[in-house]
This record gives sequence, C-alpha cells and structure tokens, in this order.
Amino acid sequence: MDSEAFVPLLRASLSQWKQRGKRAVWIKLPIELANLVEPAVKEGFKYHHAEPDYVMLVNWISKSTNSLPKNASHRVGISAFVMNDKREVLVVQEKSGKFKGTGVWKFPTGVVDEGEDISMAAIREVKEETGIDTEFVEILAFRQSHKSFFTKSDLLFVCMLRPRSFDIQKQDTEIEAAQWMPVEEYAEQAFMKRHDSFSSVAKVCLTKSEKEYAGFSPIPRTTASGKTTYLYFNTKDLTQIKIP
Amino acid sequence: MDSEAFVPLLRASLSQWKQRGKRAVWIKLPIELANLVEPAVKEGFKYHHAEPDYVMLVNWISKSTNSLPKNASHRVGISAFVMNDKREVLVVQEKSGKFKGTGVWKFPTGVVDEGEDISMAAIREVKEETGIDTEFVEILAFRQSHKSFFTKSDLLFVCMLRPRSFDIQKQDTEIEAAQWMPVEEYAEQAFMKRHDSFSSVAKVCLTKSEKEYAGFSPIPRTTASGKTTYLYFNTKDLTQIKIP
Repeated sequence: MDSEAFVPLLRASLSQWKQRGKRAVWIKLPIELANLVEPAVKEGFKYHHAEPDYVMLVNWISKSTNSLPKNASHRVGISAFVMNDKREVLVVQEKSGKFKGTGVWKFPTGVVDEGEDISMAAIREVKEETGIDTEFVEILAFRQSHKSFFTKSDLLFVCMLRPRSFDIQKQDTEIEAAQWMPVEEYAEQAFMKRHDSFSSVAKVCLTKSEKEYAGFSPIPRTTASGKTTYLYFNTKDLTQIKIP
Repeated sequence: MDSEAFVPLLRASLSQWKQRGKRAVWIKLPIELANLVEPAVKEGFKYHHAEPDYVMLVNWISKSTNSLPKNASHRVGISAFVMNDKREVLVVQEKSGKFKGTGVWKFPTGVVDEGEDISMAAIREVKEETGIDTEFVEILAFRQSHKSFFTKSDLLFVCMLRPRSFDIQKQDTEIEAAQWMPVEEYAEQAFMKRHDSFSSVAKVCLTKSEKEYAGFSPIPRTTASGKTTYLYFNTKDLTQIKIP
C-alpha cells in the first residue's frame, strides 16, 4: 500500500473509531511497509515496540488517561549450577564476551527465549553448550540489574539442575572449553573471591551442596484466564503446614 | 534531515564501517525523524526495538554470525502481601481490568518501572494505591506467564512487606476500595479457591504468617562491571554454614 492511499483511509477510520468511543488504535506495520511509518506518525501515532520484522504503533484517541500496558522492560537469563555425585560442577570458558581470555571457569549461562519457561531454558542452554542432559531442580537465587543493554534491565536466575548424562560434548562456536571441576576449586577462583556477586552465588551453591538450602521449585498452576504457568516457591517449608 | 541528504551519507558511512571491520551499525531515530525509517530499511537495516519516542534500527554488516543481544522479552510486576500485627492483610478492589466489578479483594499489584528495583516497586505501588508506608521483607514466590501482551511474557513477584503506617488513603483513579482484611477471610474468598494459582499464593502467604517460611531476601552486591545490584536468595538457610 502506498501512503497516498493509506492516509485518507486512516483518517476516515480514526474519525469513526473516535465516534464509537474506542480508546486506542494499534497499527502493526511489517518492515515491508516501512513507507507507512512516517504517515502514521504524522496522524498522531507513537511507537509502542518493535521486533526485527515489524514496528507496532499506537494512538491513544480517548480523552481519558492513557492506560496502555508498558513495553517489555527486562531480558531474562539463566545461570546453571549442575553438580554430579563426585561434587564436581559443570563449568565452561566462553569464546566471547567479558570473560573471553580471562581463564575464568563459569557456570553455563544463556538468555531465556521469548515464550520459554525459565526451567526449560536452563535445560536447553546446558545441553547446547556442553551436551549434558539434565533435569531441573530449583531456583537458588536471582539477580536484577539495570541498563544492561540500552535502557533495559536483566533478571538472571541461578538454577540448580541434576545431570542425567556425564560425557561433555562442547559447542564449538561459543564455548572455548568445558569440564567437570571440584566445586570447591570453582569457588576458590580468584575472580570469584574478588566479586561479591559471584562469591555470594558460589556460597549459595556450596550451601545447597552441603546442607539444607530451600530454593524455589516450579509448580505448574492454572491462572484465572486458564493458562498453565509455573509458580516458583519454597515447597519445603510449605509442606510443614496444613491449610484448607 | 531529509532522506535525499541522508541516503548518500548513510551509504558512504556503511562502506567505510565495513572496510574497518565493524560488525553492526545502530541508528536511533527519534520520532521526529520518522521520514528516515523507510530509507534506512531500504539500505538493509532492521528494527531492533522501539519506545514511544524513537525507533532503534540495526544492520549486521559482518559476514560472521549475528550475535546481537535480543530485545527485552519480559514485563515484570509485583503483588504485595502486607500484613499487620492483627493478622489483617491490605487488600484492594480495582476500577478496571479483569477483576473490575467482581467483588474480589486482591493484593495491591503493579508494574515494575524501567530501571526500578523490584523491592522499590513494591513499596511504591503499595504507597500509590493505598497510602500505606512499608518496608520490604522478602520475595515469597514468583510466576512466569507467556503471551500476556502481544508476544511478551510476564514475571510476577509476590513480595512480603511490613507496614509502617496503617491509615488507608486510597488512590481514586484506579482503586475502587481498599481495606485491612483478616488473612483467613482473604484466603477463603470463593475466587481464590477456584484458581490454584491464587490459592497457592494465599497458601504461601498463610504459611509465612503462621510458620517458618524462607523466601528470598534482597542483598546488595557489586557486579564484575562495578554496578550495584540486588541478589535475592534464602538468607535464612545460608547463615547455617560457614564458608571461607
């Protein structure tokens, strides 16, 4: 569609929608229709969000206060604590990023895909980076950080997983090296000791490996709108009480 | 800038950047320059993300695999469990949304602003909706749900807060009613019992109010890049072990 056909159509529609008491008008423009972005903006639309192949514009046409849901603000990542029966943890060295060439051994980490459950992402990333099959156990801790990428924030979930296989097949494009390493040796790395965000996570994992530490377990629940979701909570403490 | 001046400039720059081995080129176009979106797309740019007043485009000009960080995928919300010494919880009825007119009493909830700490958001939302001052205690549980808004996901953190004031001053535009309600009465609402995602949260809160339940506490930590962040974990179990 060219903008000469688009603008009169849009104006007529906006006028109708206002009369009908609509509050907001959305336009999703695939990247092939980038020519219509400027005319839509001239008619009062603002950007709401964009993905690689489209931009979503919105026009709040009501006189009431704008109550549109905000754009996504966080990226979500996982860090995987996988320990075998010999008290060895699965660790990697990355080929890129800030740990490149530092010699630091770290837990496999990765980004949760859009629409993916945190527990599934942890299992997937461990498999992709090291070839190890795992089952999900618990979330032991999480961290929120800001301005990690442009204005957005990050949530990083430290996940405990139990290994179901032990032979490492490392992924070659992202991972320089991968191995099973005694958990104490992991925690004693100079880098870990220098940074309290790392040393605290190591301490949590060591506590979990030696003593009782209740993390949050994912329990499938149905929401009011009928969707299946995971609710993560401390199930160990919960079993101590009986509630109707 | 008009597109006739922009395009030759962009082409010359792209050619230079390629020669210098740059991998990606970003263009941030304020909404006033919506006229340059189409020419940028024609030169090979795709959308990366957008906020109301700008769109960010990116062009991966390297022959290597695209390793750009993904766009934000999650919105983050809080639900606030605030209980006084009489075992009454702070509850509200909302003027809009899916609970409008249902008579359901629910915890104050809200969206975490961009760049805002979860604990700060919980304190802010309780204050905004009810006028009650609180201090943050713990995260008791959280839920991940998908396709909550377009293709994005939600993370909802159930936060426990301790009240520091008790006189309710409800916010009029969003909140129909607000009160202190006996916690058992809250949990016994028919709606709560019908939906296991709500009843489970109620059960967690009741457990916390009656017995030992270890949630995740926010502990300030410094990251490797020098930022202050909050790491949330079970500090109660952690104090049982001494680690170097």
